[in-house]
Amino acid sequence: MTAEHFADRHIGPDPDDERRMLETVGYGSVDELMDAAIPEVIRWHGTLDLPAPASEREAIAELRALAARNTVAVSMIGLGYHGTHTPAVIRRNVLESPAWYTAYTPYQPEISQGRLEALLNFQSMVSELTALPVANASMLDEGTAAAEAMTLARRASKSKSPVYVVDADALPQTIAVITSRAEPLGIDVRVLDLGAAELPGEFFGLHLQYPGASGAVRDHAPLVEAAHAAGALVTVAADLLALTLLRPPGEMGVDIAAGTTQRFGVPMGFGGPHAGYLAVRAGLERMLPGRLVGVSRDADGNPAYRLALQTREQHIRREKATSNICTAQVLLAVMAGMYAVYHGPDGLRAIARRTHDMAARLAAGLRVGGVEVADVAFFDTVTAVVPGRAAEVVAAAAERNVNLRLVDADRVGISCDETTTGAHLRSVWAAFGVDGFDGDVDATLPVALARTSDFLTHPVFRSHHSETAMLRYLRRLSDFDYALDRGMIPLGSCTMKLNATTEMEAITWPEFAHLHPFAPDAQTAGYRELIAQLEGWLAEVTGYDAVSVQPNAGSQGELAGLLAIRAYHRDRGEVHRDVCLIPSSAHGTNAASAVMAGMRVVVVACDADGNVDLVDLDAKIDKHRDALAAIMVTYPSTHGVYETGIAQLCAKVHDAGGQVYVDGANLNALVGFAKPGKFGADVSHLNLHKTFCIPHGGGGPGVGPVAVRAHLAPFLPGDPSGAHVDGRPAISAARYGSAGILPIPWAYLRMMGAAGLTRATGVAVLAANYVAARLRNHFPVLYAGNKGLVAHECILDLRPLTKATGVSVDDVAKRLIDYGFHAPTMSFPVAGTLMVEPTESEDLAELDRFCDAMIAIRAEIDKVGSGQWPTGDNPLANAPHTAAMVSGDEWPHPYPRSVGAYPGAVDRMAKYWPPVRRIDGAYGDRNLVCSCPSPEAFES
Amino acid sequence: MTAEHFADRHIGPDPDDERRMLETVGYGSVDELMDAAIPEVIRWHGTLDLPAPASEREAIAELRALAARNTVAVSMIGLGYHGTHTPAVIRRNVLESPAWYTAYTPYQPEISQGRLEALLNFQSMVSELTALPVANASMLDEGTAAAEAMTLARRASKSKSPVYVVDADALPQTIAVITSRAEPLGIDVRVLDLGAAELPGEFFGLHLQYPGASGAVRDHAPLVEAAHAAGALVTVAADLLALTLLRPPGEMGVDIAAGTTQRFGVPMGFGGPHAGYLAVRAGLERMLPGRLVGVSRDADGNPAYRLALQTREQHIRREKATSNICTAQVLLAVMAGMYAVYHGPDGLRAIARRTHDMAARLAAGLRVGGVEVADVAFFDTVTAVVPGRAAEVVAAAAERNVNLRLVDADRVGISCDETTTGAHLRSVWAAFGVDGFDGDVDATLPVALARTSDFLTHPVFRSHHSETAMLRYLRRLSDFDYALDRGMIPLGSCTMKLNATTEMEAITWPEFAHLHPFAPDAQTAGYRELIAQLEGWLAEVTGYDAVSVQPNAGSQGELAGLLAIRAYHRDRGEVHRDVCLIPSSAHGTNAASAVMAGMRVVVVACDADGNVDLVDLDAKIDKHRDALAAIMVTYPSTHGVYETGIAQLCAKVHDAGGQVYVDGANLNALVGFAKPGKFGADVSHLNLHKTFCIPHGGGGPGVGPVAVRAHLAPFLPGDPSGAHVDGRPAISAARYGSAGILPIPWAYLRMMGAAGLTRATGVAVLAANYVAARLRNHFPVLYAGNKGLVAHECILDLRPLTKATGVSVDDVAKRLIDYGFHAPTMSFPVAGTLMVEPTESEDLAELDRFCDAMIAIRAEIDKVGSGQWPTGDNPLANAPHTAAMVSGDEWPHPYPRSVGAYPGAVDRMAKYWPPVRRIDGAYGDRNLVCSCPSPEAFES
Repeated sequence: MTAEHFADRHIGPDPDDERRMLETVGYGSVDELMDAAIPEVIRWHGTLDLPAPASEREAIAELRALAARNTVAVSMIGLGYHGTHTPAVIRRNVLESPAWYTAYTPYQPEISQGRLEALLNFQSMVSELTALPVANASMLDEGTAAAEAMTLARRASKSKSPVYVVDADALPQTIAVITSRAEPLGIDVRVLDLGAAELPGEFFGLHLQYPGASGAVRDHAPLVEAAHAAGALVTVAADLLALTLLRPPGEMGVDIAAGTTQRFGVPMGFGGPHAGYLAVRAGLERMLPGRLVGVSRDADGNPAYRLALQTREQHIRREKATSNICTAQVLLAVMAGMYAVYHGPDGLRAIARRTHDMAARLAAGLRVGGVEVADVAFFDTVTAVVPGRAAEVVAAAAERNVNLRLVDADRVGISCDETTTGAHLRSVWAAFGVDGFDGDVDATLPVALARTSDFLTHPVFRSHHSETAMLRYLRRLSDFDYALDRGMIPLGSCTMKLNATTEMEAITWPEFAHLHPFAPDAQTAGYRELIAQLEGWLAEVTGYDAVSVQPNAGSQGELAGLLAIRAYHRDRGEVHRDVCLIPSSAHGTNAASAVMAGMRVVVVACDADGNVDLVDLDAKIDKHRDALAAIMVTYPSTHGVYETGIAQLCAKVHDAGGQVYVDGANLNALVGFAKPGKFGADVSHLNLHKTFCIPHGGGGPGVGPVAVRAHLAPFLPGDPSGAHVDGRPAISAARYGSAGILPIPWAYLRMMGAAGLTRATGVAVLAANYVAARLRNHFPVLYAGNKGLVAHECILDLRPLTKATGVSVDDVAKRLIDYGFHAPTMSFPVAGTLMVEPTESEDLAELDRFCDAMIAIRAEIDKVGSGQWPTGDNPLANAPHTAAMVSGDEWPHPYPRSVGAYPGAVDRMAKYWPPVRRIDGAYGDRNLVCSCPSPEAFES
Repeated sequence: MTAEHFADRHIGPDPDDERRMLETVGYGSVDELMDAAIPEVIRWHGTLDLPAPASEREAIAELRALAARNTVAVSMIGLGYHGTHTPAVIRRNVLESPAWYTAYTPYQPEISQGRLEALLNFQSMVSELTALPVANASMLDEGTAAAEAMTLARRASKSKSPVYVVDADALPQTIAVITSRAEPLGIDVRVLDLGAAELPGEFFGLHLQYPGASGAVRDHAPLVEAAHAAGALVTVAADLLALTLLRPPGEMGVDIAAGTTQRFGVPMGFGGPHAGYLAVRAGLERMLPGRLVGVSRDADGNPAYRLALQTREQHIRREKATSNICTAQVLLAVMAGMYAVYHGPDGLRAIARRTHDMAARLAAGLRVGGVEVADVAFFDTVTAVVPGRAAEVVAAAAERNVNLRLVDADRVGISCDETTTGAHLRSVWAAFGVDGFDGDVDATLPVALARTSDFLTHPVFRSHHSETAMLRYLRRLSDFDYALDRGMIPLGSCTMKLNATTEMEAITWPEFAHLHPFAPDAQTAGYRELIAQLEGWLAEVTGYDAVSVQPNAGSQGELAGLLAIRAYHRDRGEVHRDVCLIPSSAHGTNAASAVMAGMRVVVVACDADGNVDLVDLDAKIDKHRDALAAIMVTYPSTHGVYETGIAQLCAKVHDAGGQVYVDGANLNALVGFAKPGKFGADVSHLNLHKTFCIPHGGGGPGVGPVAVRAHLAPFLPGDPSGAHVDGRPAISAARYGSAGILPIPWAYLRMMGAAGLTRATGVAVLAANYVAARLRNHFPVLYAGNKGLVAHECILDLRPLTKATGVSVDDVAKRLIDYGFHAPTMSFPVAGTLMVEPTESEDLAELDRFCDAMIAIRAEIDKVGSGQWPTGDNPLANAPHTAAMVSGDEWPHPYPRSVGAYPGAVDRMAKYWPPVRRIDGAYGDRNLVCSCPSPEAFES
């Protein structure tokens, strides 16, 4: 082995391991295994047409060459994207730290206390800055947060009106996303200049920007009052930095605040990823979409964090869902929260004051030079009026390496931020042809709108202002958590594989990190080339004709794909096609997305083998033939099986005039062996954070490109900035979504090449079958396809054991923590089961360590079953065991401490200890607390 | 506070903290405190003449501008410095990870098992590749390792001859370092072309290069035999990569192998830092200089690592020392060892074969084109003979961005390495004006010298070849260790303060990391500008006239300073001045360095207050007046006191014709308040890894610049490459020593500015006095200066308590681990005491946590004293407590588990657990094992 073959580093098992695994599974080679596993009807026998694999250094060199074709200009465009200084201690110890970026969504809260605390900080920050009691963690961007606010308002409003009013001074991309989301839901969006126009008589909600896109700071209280009088709810999209100086939405009676936290230390990244936010007044918290971290307690009664009110979420509510948001922007929310922790309230205020001072000096300089500046209060953004000269001024600034906003032929927008310097102001003045101004200026914020209330009062925001203290806080939190850097995370359907360092490398380079999404094309040639290459490679891998990377999460990819289907039917005059068939085994988000796309969900049954019941499919097609819009299936199925009926299924739906949506969540089982675009599907979304190595970041960022066959290509997402308006839907706020992390999948594809990708798929399937083979005698393996083989994951059925012994799937999941593992996926797609997806990156030693642990747990279950251990007090029921518990002065349990602490072959020197015992989720839901608890709560 | 003032991030206490600390100490302001603490006679009242402080982004921008003035050419110069690919997973998770780089030297082995294992890997790697049984960890570079080998040979040889023979095909910088080191020791170095010349009749040692600097691979066995016949020892400076293919030194009967591990993944860094190595045959292990990691056992009998045979070391042996090496290159040794772990034996062989193949192709292409190539076997380096054209060829290559070695007017050296590509070969061929060669070539290594023995047989080198496995191994090891990212390391005399992320940032940029030390000056303008600025700022801070950054450790700075004094006296014809006065309180390395510099050490007594006894000083001066060369003192003293007699002391020595050397180890107590160069000293070395924020890296790298007054400037180190020969000594192998990490102190000085540096000093002294004030009633504080104040550290006297209770200083140090701390410095400078240096970077909360722990420990000692706990079985005697111990099924101790596990206010959720119990060092010394033990040893 040499370092020159990246695939050898990415794929865990070496040839020796592979041989031994194949022996256990009973095949002579991976090829033989794959021939047996994958139905020939969908099998693709070509070689992927990708460039020959690059070594790690070659890939980095190519990325450097692409980066060099981008120009990092000073961005004063504003519009919700601002220059910011990421504190180096946060960049290196969060964004560049595997302990943070390789973590999974905190569904196993006992081993996720670090990121849960970080997200609680984020929620507290948003809540206190907006002066609204509950904030979630987190939204995908400001545009989609505003769209979620709209649908929340509709649910909460007593008004029956379908009208949603949006102030014309809202961000243009927000208006685009709101409009795109509203249309399939029958919401009538009215964009009005509320400085001039009247509110309509009836409407269910009102969206305001604060400060406005123009920079104007207006007192929105009268509009809020008027809206409330009409029974409407009011959303304010507020800039959190401005709120350190301005009266917050919660003190204006606003119902909902939405926005982005990008300028809190998160690089612009050519559009993302950044954490959006959503905060609501009391009474709306149970209607909040997305994830919400709350405080509960553990088995010892100590405070502990976990995701709250999960029954609201889309994967539970399925077709009753009101939002499809699933993956969030955890890593970026952690960064933004830590930015607030590091600066504290005084630091944030100082940054805001300095930013405002720069804008005030800028305006003063323009005025002194005779340039008209819009006569309104402003925080950081100034609109200059230069009749007929705007384009010329913007061009002159660009020549000085400064990007301004071309509002229209007569007006130029200029935004200041944390990074603005006197030199930047001088460049702007020069672009306007004025001399500028050197004196002091007064703050121009209206006194009546000055913030008087305190914020970030919790000690966490007041104790970590030295770098030493910050570094230790980050280390302390990350040590609480179990991530891929500690061991395997065998989560079925989540594909937790290696996120290689080289893949991560380019995302923090300034040429990728510091571009504004609306920067002129001339400055972004390298980025757009990278994206075009990536889209091309993804099209090749999936067999589709066109790809859009705009959707910034899998759920958004689903929505984009379904909207493309909807638009296709409408384009053909088949407006009535609105039924989406979804198998009962589907991930709940599928159904939620269908609802968001204005479709009616019809469930198709599965047969006893877990496959889509083709007889029921026929019946459902017959019943809905004329209304049939689409079927949405996952392949391999969510049961982890290569269903042989897939080709038939596609044909049946096509015959009835429907389109076939194949959810790409399980693409890791197909790459190089089958292409959805070639075996019958019309559209898929991919999860770049699964198959293509974007790290899960503790629950985001994800990227969910949508891939389509040619006939759907005209209906792919358009540019929400309006720069390339073409009637296409805006799925996220930026043209290329989370462009900032696309170098990751680019590097993965570039370094693996056709042979590497294909081998990865084979080894992933081999690993799943190896686990199934080793565990089958201890736990029944549910569902299989050809010759009893599973695809890339396998379902272990705990239900008979639970029935016989009372030991639940939860007990096993928590007990795995004691053995040093993250649990597999629990109770999805089948309640009472565990779904194991080992991926290709785990070597045989780790696979065996996991299988050994599961076998040992089976023996423990048997001890409960035989009565040797009582039902309520055994190592499974008491799992996970904390260090404090096993070293307690008392030990009242009927098994030795060593059995609790060090089961199986657990490494005694390097054991991972969870910081809390099992958490009582329901308690927290009954006693909802979603911001930082007082330190006293932690005193024992 | 805003992010704009770096000093606010570097200094832990905020104004509130400061106020409370001053109250406890009894002063109204830091200025008042400093006025009281520092003797007016040395006090400097100016403002440091440094540039106004830069913000973190400004400093990075300036560094980027400096970096842009360097040119990263393809380096084919060779001569012991080679291009290498640092595996990204190692770079990010070792070199860029605070858990590794902020760790201290593993003197507290229980909390250092991770880096001790990593160093044991390094030793095993060196030992197996050289086929010699014992290797140390590590030397400073190849040149100094070779010099250490020379003195080791002299000690071990039975020959009385002062002659040391060095083959002319050794690296020129090695010859320079050997010669510089030999001269003061009376060793007669003879550089001979052993291909032609005869060995002399008598000599004690022989130094050979393998392969030679010319690239030639020769069978050294006949020379080894001849040397042994003469009673001489043989050192081979061997390239470890070549040894994967070539017969290793140990199989040729060689006694010592020395060299560098740079090409094992450590960037060239314009000369360093890299880890040198030294390995010896059986029988010489107790003569090895430097640190040696060995396997011993803990209180449970489990295997555990610690530094072995410490009584050999310079700080113990003082004037009897035979080497002064102290700080090593731990961080780089860890990287090099991990490079071997990641590639494994097959990977290393593949890299070596590919490198050789490139060289063979290169030679074939030259020959095909009619260029003469020296007719010898080679591994990676080819010498081309182009009579009269060498300079022209080198220039032509440089135009193609490739650096070659200009051997002389007729010969060009070309070295291939891991990074060499076909394109590089084509550039070289073009520079020679030949077409090159496209076919395959045979390996040209002599069959008789082929390696036949296996190496890297331990599983650690065969189990971590996937990135996932490597990442987890690095995490596992780093989790074993306690570093600054977990909490305070209050080590007196070591100044463990913040190593800020921004300071660390530039060192991994290619423009600083990938320059060869012998690159043409035209390519290194930015680097040299940075170094010139840094030297200037250091001169300003210390009050000296000239600074050299060449010494790559404090010990080397001492040697450089003493050699300057020696040369100064000789230059004045005072050859007889060879006595160096050293106070009894001095660090042992001072005396060792004096011996290395050819001086006789005369000890000066200290008085009861710990100050230099001026009466004894007078007596010693009288006795040695004519021979007096120097006095070497530390200021503030190693007792942590601003001695008031310092000015008198300087005057007395000067009056007797001696020079004053002030050891700069404690400079953190002076910066901005006093300048050694102004209060009477002639020379100092500084520890950039103490006062100036280079991280300790687990025991290196350090940098020890030497600073002198003008009269000593002509005697500062010269350029060992020979490019700038001027008769000055070569202290390390490269002109600027460990140039690669100089951006760290540059950034610190640049961002702190005069006010920040001065405030840091004041807060450091305040913190030490605060700790002294809080602990004085619980432990006597030894020694104080003006008004009972200490300087930047304080000594807690445990001796009365030890006498009364049997609780030792060791017990307290280990018990501090249970409380979550690294122990203060133990038994230095006074046996039976702890010396606490909190530094300015620790905030009040952390200082209080430490003081509270010490007070609680005092109460525990009293319980032993009162008989409540038995002497041999109490929380102090049993410390540290591991998780395995406190959760054991049995608990036979007379105190509750909770007292063992969670004393004081220890954070139960985030407790740091040591992986092993107290280690029995003596056992390991009796049963010396210095390479990786078999995995079975760890089975419980």
